[in-house]
Amino acid sequence: MWQLHHFTLCPFSRKIRFQCAEKQVAVELVREHPWERRDAFLLLNPAGQTPVLANATLTLSDSAAISEYLEETVEKTPLLGSGAAERAEVRRLTAWFDQKFYAEVVVPLLAERMFKRVVTRGSPDAATIRAAQRAAEQHFDYLDYLLEHRRWLSGPAFGMADVAAAAQISVADYLGGIDWDGHEEARTWYSALKSRPTFRPLLAERMEGLAPPQHYDKLDF
Amino acid sequence: MWQLHHFTLCPFSRKIRFQCAEKQVAVELVREHPWERRDAFLLLNPAGQTPVLANATLTLSDSAAISEYLEETVEKTPLLGSGAAERAEVRRLTAWFDQKFYAEVVVPLLAERMFKRVVTRGSPDAATIRAAQRAAEQHFDYLDYLLEHRRWLSGPAFGMADVAAAAQISVADYLGGIDWDGHEEARTWYSALKSRPTFRPLLAERMEGLAPPQHYDKLDF
Repeated sequence: MWQLHHFTLCPFSRKIRFQCAEKQVAVELVREHPWERRDAFLLLNPAGQTPVLANATLTLSDSAAISEYLEETVEKTPLLGSGAAERAEVRRLTAWFDQKFYAEVVVPLLAERMFKRVVTRGSPDAATIRAAQRAAEQHFDYLDYLLEHRRWLSGPAFGMADVAAAAQISVADYLGGIDWDGHEEARTWYSALKSRPTFRPLLAERMEGLAPPQHYDKLDF
Repeated sequence: MWQLHHFTLCPFSRKIRFQCAEKQVAVELVREHPWERRDAFLLLNPAGQTPVLANATLTLSDSAAISEYLEETVEKTPLLGSGAAERAEVRRLTAWFDQKFYAEVVVPLLAERMFKRVVTRGSPDAATIRAAQRAAEQHFDYLDYLLEHRRWLSGPAFGMADVAAAAQISVADYLGGIDWDGHEEARTWYSALKSRPTFRPLLAERMEGLAPPQHYDKLDF
């Protein structure tokens, strides 16, 4: 069986967990805090980042490489779309959330509200958090715009762009970075994701010492 | 014909140009300075980043999405390798250079030595440049390690990992960020890349007002 090295608030681990659940790939979870830089973990992935997906013969890292590997090897529930142009759009939006949303919204929230709380016991910087919340607003305007024209993020079918976006947004939401007011399209879309049995287990998890806002795992939020 | 919106020192544009040259895909170059945030360019790519590859019917952005599209649609010279595990290794190393090397080495060098020189006319920060050079050292240790065991970065065959690494490294080298001393494996590998007719045109280009070091386009360096 695959082992997935992850931690609860790692958005890239959430993406792979959500993808595996959709594709009915069983994984055993192994908790890893990459900031501890354990030698045994650096041997698995010299980049020092979660997630790592490994079995007896293969060790995969980089969440995009893992995700493409799963699409290539597991036929059930294809999530990249059919046709090269459609897949390019799925990959563009996946990268948007994995890189742009992550850097502008999730990284500062993780640094200020997770890392300082749980690891270094420092005081969060209010200005950094506000900047992340403002960046989230702009991303949600773009989400609304896309969802005015499309049922799911990349088109008519649910796919990896939705999985990646849900993974990043769920971490930002856990850390109090998202104001849902005024984003009805995004809210309707995320509500549909929240009710998926493949996503619900992620929302039920808690990081010790760090509680999410009340609305976080509610279907009506 | 495809148009590629790019600028000379954009490592992701270089990656796509190198890949297109290897696959004999003709592209017309269109210069774009993404920091000017032109409305017409933001309509092509709301992320505001180069490269964008477009023709009369299709507009593609995000360099990984473009790269995968080219691999899927152009049979000539496949660069991802055969077999899912091999492709996962190619994609892992491509992401290593596109994300980790870019963030730790290329971003600070572009900010201090390109952007401040050509755009804002500020003074480069010596400490930031030194930190980027130290980060480059560590990446080159990893390169040497890989190349002790492998002919090319991801294995016996030339592929996208080499293309992506060459693109990032060539920009860092243009900006004086690379000390080749003591990295014989990396030097031999890069020398083989420099002599490829598909890569040489990139090395012949200059950004106005910004000269590379003497060794930059020499085969013997």
